[in-house]
Amino acid sequence: MSTNLHETATLPPSVNPVERLASLMGPDLAAVDDVIHSRMLSEAALIPQVGQHLVDSGGKRLRPLITLAAARQFGYRGDAHVKLAAAVEFIHTATLLHDDVVDESTLRRGRPAANLLWGNKPSILVGDFLFSRAFQLMVEVGSPAVLGVLANASAIIAEGEVLQLRSAKNLAISEAQYLHVITAKTAALFSAAAEAGAMAAGANPEEWQAMGEYGRNLGISFQLVDDALDYSGRQAVMGKSVGDDFRESKMTLPVILSLKNASEEERRFWRKTIEVSVQEEGDLSRAIEYLERGGALAETIERARLYAKAAREALALCAESEIKMALADIADFVVERAY
Amino acid sequence: MSTNLHETATLPPSVNPVERLASLMGPDLAAVDDVIHSRMLSEAALIPQVGQHLVDSGGKRLRPLITLAAARQFGYRGDAHVKLAAAVEFIHTATLLHDDVVDESTLRRGRPAANLLWGNKPSILVGDFLFSRAFQLMVEVGSPAVLGVLANASAIIAEGEVLQLRSAKNLAISEAQYLHVITAKTAALFSAAAEAGAMAAGANPEEWQAMGEYGRNLGISFQLVDDALDYSGRQAVMGKSVGDDFRESKMTLPVILSLKNASEEERRFWRKTIEVSVQEEGDLSRAIEYLERGGALAETIERARLYAKAAREALALCAESEIKMALADIADFVVERAY
Repeated sequence: MSTNLHETATLPPSVNPVERLASLMGPDLAAVDDVIHSRMLSEAALIPQVGQHLVDSGGKRLRPLITLAAARQFGYRGDAHVKLAAAVEFIHTATLLHDDVVDESTLRRGRPAANLLWGNKPSILVGDFLFSRAFQLMVEVGSPAVLGVLANASAIIAEGEVLQLRSAKNLAISEAQYLHVITAKTAALFSAAAEAGAMAAGANPEEWQAMGEYGRNLGISFQLVDDALDYSGRQAVMGKSVGDDFRESKMTLPVILSLKNASEEERRFWRKTIEVSVQEEGDLSRAIEYLERGGALAETIERARLYAKAAREALALCAESEIKMALADIADFVVERAY
Repeated sequence: MSTNLHETATLPPSVNPVERLASLMGPDLAAVDDVIHSRMLSEAALIPQVGQHLVDSGGKRLRPLITLAAARQFGYRGDAHVKLAAAVEFIHTATLLHDDVVDESTLRRGRPAANLLWGNKPSILVGDFLFSRAFQLMVEVGSPAVLGVLANASAIIAEGEVLQLRSAKNLAISEAQYLHVITAKTAALFSAAAEAGAMAAGANPEEWQAMGEYGRNLGISFQLVDDALDYSGRQAVMGKSVGDDFRESKMTLPVILSLKNASEEERRFWRKTIEVSVQEEGDLSRAIEYLERGGALAETIERARLYAKAAREALALCAESEIKMALADIADFVVERAY
């Protein structure tokens, strides 16, 4: 498996393309932050407390940035994209709050997860509130087509999460089934974020479908890297816990790939730790060792690279612009995170 | 406290006005059931399993019935009200699923709660799915005004649930604060259900606002009676568990009213069981005894009766019809449940 990406990993931090896009979208992004903060206010003081804990905890606003960028790339001059971008971030935040309850997470973006600080109840209910707020914002924008895109994405995300529940502990899960789950639970929102921005700008169907393809491939790439990082020591540096998927006996691509060429000893190990879910001291290190030695982690990153390439290619019909370059570079950057 | 309602409680079952309205709305209601069942289907088989467990468990479809009735009362001849009614039921079902996780419920409509059968995770995620489906249905209807009414209601419901979290164990909660919470968590959906139906029919603002008032007052009345029934032996007959609110140290109107004229002994009792949340064998019986002896349960029902009257009066501007009569009678029926 060739991985010659360490060269580009030496780029100076100023060239981080997410930051570049954020700077290109400066006033728009500031407006999104204003909407996020003002719409999180509620007489129920717990709502902004819980919501802002997540929103302020250094999330990169990647999804709303994509909505803003897609709109501007197609020449949008209004301000409806700001509300759409805020709605996208609210849907994302609601999903994180509910995910953390479902996964019994302890860390999120390097800080204690909301469910740990306030309990499960506020996480569930504040998630519901933010989800409703997202729809209120979309209703204000008043475009049924855009609303449809985001409502569909929300349903697909929930479906993906339910499918994922059922694929835990199941060593028979195929790569195709796994891809189907992550396309739903992660890539659908990236796709809708890009599509909604282009639609709001009045792009033609070919254009907004291409933006949807960009988002979908970017999202798949993003999740593949995340799933590889969960078995990587680098996660600790990023303030995330390592081995969450392992502890929850989730079937992710590294394990699926590893099982393909597993020795009898390795197979017994995965059966014990994932299928029967019996995990002892040292098992996570052993899992990481198997995944690294057999090349499953590198292969997962290699797949991520293919999706990143597809994301980049989906931008072909966009006019050349700094925004387009930043979006294309973000696709690569998502993979660079792994190094 | 005069309660002379035992007379009307002897009405033959055929005159149950919810059933009467269901029969008036026969084909519409059947169409709603079709939409509910077809839109609950998903490749994630768990979604219809969990969803239908609730939907099929003998719920009376009161909220969607109100949407259908409001539309027909104002002369609607299309079929968009069917999708709106299904959306209302999906929002309600999603709320129940999440409520049961938050309240750690064991029973719902006389059957084991979904969280008990499948665990919390599917309840959270299937709730999210149904909520998204509700918005998809509303988007198909394509009326931004109606969408706005239901999106607002969803946000208000979540806000009410969060406020309620914070009012548990707090003996200082006032009657006004309690009313505010139940107006949000319960009455907002009844109100939106009625308003949305009238709006879809093209009723004028005065008309759909009146329908909103009907729903709001009906919803408050409904919740007041529910909160009284939670301290009543009749609950057991209805397949609901008794004393849920007490066990969760919720501050509901019966307790608030009881505290007003409580003896020092009673006050000590509420402090121990609600504020400090220490409950022993026999405490629920003692709570019921205090609430009955002091008249707090009867007084709660008396308030419910006032709201039911207001609901009935809100229908004044409706043309005389069997639908109007059934809606008016439902307001009384909601209170009759207490006997």
